[in-house]
Amino acid sequence: MKIGFIGLGVMGRPMAARLIDAGHELFVSRVRAISEFLVGAGATACASPRDVAEAAAVIILMVPRTEDVEQVLFGPDGVSEGLRPGALVIDMSSISPIATREFAKRIAALGASYVDAPVSGGDAGAKAGTLSIMAGGEAADFERARPLFEILGANVNLVGSVGAGQTTKVANQIIVAGTIQAVAEALRLAEAAGADPAKVRAAIGGGFASSKVLEVHGQRIIDEAFDPGFRIRLHHKDLEIAMTAAESLNVELPVTARVKELMASAMQAGLGDLDHSALFVQLRNAHETGQ
Amino acid sequence: MKIGFIGLGVMGRPMAARLIDAGHELFVSRVRAISEFLVGAGATACASPRDVAEAAAVIILMVPRTEDVEQVLFGPDGVSEGLRPGALVIDMSSISPIATREFAKRIAALGASYVDAPVSGGDAGAKAGTLSIMAGGEAADFERARPLFEILGANVNLVGSVGAGQTTKVANQIIVAGTIQAVAEALRLAEAAGADPAKVRAAIGGGFASSKVLEVHGQRIIDEAFDPGFRIRLHHKDLEIAMTAAESLNVELPVTARVKELMASAMQAGLGDLDHSALFVQLRNAHETGQ
Repeated sequence: MKIGFIGLGVMGRPMAARLIDAGHELFVSRVRAISEFLVGAGATACASPRDVAEAAAVIILMVPRTEDVEQVLFGPDGVSEGLRPGALVIDMSSISPIATREFAKRIAALGASYVDAPVSGGDAGAKAGTLSIMAGGEAADFERARPLFEILGANVNLVGSVGAGQTTKVANQIIVAGTIQAVAEALRLAEAAGADPAKVRAAIGGGFASSKVLEVHGQRIIDEAFDPGFRIRLHHKDLEIAMTAAESLNVELPVTARVKELMASAMQAGLGDLDHSALFVQLRNAHETGQ
Repeated sequence: MKIGFIGLGVMGRPMAARLIDAGHELFVSRVRAISEFLVGAGATACASPRDVAEAAAVIILMVPRTEDVEQVLFGPDGVSEGLRPGALVIDMSSISPIATREFAKRIAALGASYVDAPVSGGDAGAKAGTLSIMAGGEAADFERARPLFEILGANVNLVGSVGAGQTTKVANQIIVAGTIQAVAEALRLAEAAGADPAKVRAAIGGGFASSKVLEVHGQRIIDEAFDPGFRIRLHHKDLEIAMTAAESLNVELPVTARVKELMASAMQAGLGDLDHSALFVQLRNAHETGQ
């Protein structure tokens, strides 16, 4: 299939490579030097997102921010200028669910379809094709995208209509953020009280406190292994999306707001490129500086 | 074995009943009408904690608060007045880890031993003998208590020295509280954004957001099944212990502090006797009242 792929970053490159390996013909734009290997591997470099859209019936986006999606779709030489009637836009970026619904309306007005399909699983999941993919859109559009999703992910779900994929990703990031901070606070208190955090973790790991975060990030905290993983900086970005969505929906997210502030403080303290489990480091530092 | 058991409330009654069923001879005080069945079942009613201590070599406490433990141990007609040399005090209440170390010192000065052994698992776990028991104390004292713990619990751990059991319980309650609030915020945002919270939960349940709380309390939120379970009022009490310990150890627990405030607000709004998953209800109410 002729597939447009826009956004060849840390996530996009291995995803695009998997699609090429599966026999698809890729049209890419925004090709940086680091992504030229994809062109060597058989992808066709295009001058702009418009050219990508003219060449392909399915266009996948994997870019950092809501503004990037808007620019790629509707900016000068954007996808919307070259979009074929009946084309399918699949946005796999992690962006605002509210803006997503607006983008989908504008794409629909051009006679094309839109599926939002953000992922979790990181670059390791992108390389291995084991991403979790949380999709929103019409069932028929999802079915059209499904063969591609199955090349990229291991856990593929249509959650609801357009925007539901982004909403699900935001929900995921809210839970992971709050749980990591709670685990960090628990283990920090245990440490300060003279208990062995590893033994505390083992004792509570079978009950209501048990979670993937206690298992993975709890172990990182005990081992002081804070190389990313998923960077505090990127998780902060996701919580910005959460808070923006919450404000526009008039919803209160008090703990999410607090963790977002804590992540911002961690970034200011130079911890932004550490794994999000390094929220623990900030708690320890707060103690040392008497804050 | 002759066992003193002080505190025959919702948790203490079924625990004492299990010990009687296992063939132990119980001496109880603070017998309310509702607990007289235990006396019928073979427990001996004593006039005071002192009388209990005079009759038994092992004295188990299961009372609500730090002040109650202090009163039972060191108040007028308290355990300390009747304590035999070589006796073992096992405090299974959930109280301050800091005060626990102080109580243990005072008991040791009387020639007796002290193990703190708070539990999780609720009255259902107490009835079924499947409590998680988190113990702190000397290994020899723990071994002496272990046969009793195995009648009461299914997951029994010696975490460290005296106080480590209470520290572990506090860590557990911090994690459960933060995780429930995070899950509630995620599902509240999903609901407000028009996504189906049940589908959102299913889509993220296999990844880093997965937890026992997402499984159990997430389902409660989706079903709006807020009958306790574990009451907001009791969890708030546990977070008060957490914050008091944190202050005396000069540790910052920003999310725990926030969830404690939210639980206090929920209690003021009349939600205190609902299950802690009803923190979700408060988020929904905040929206309706435009707070």
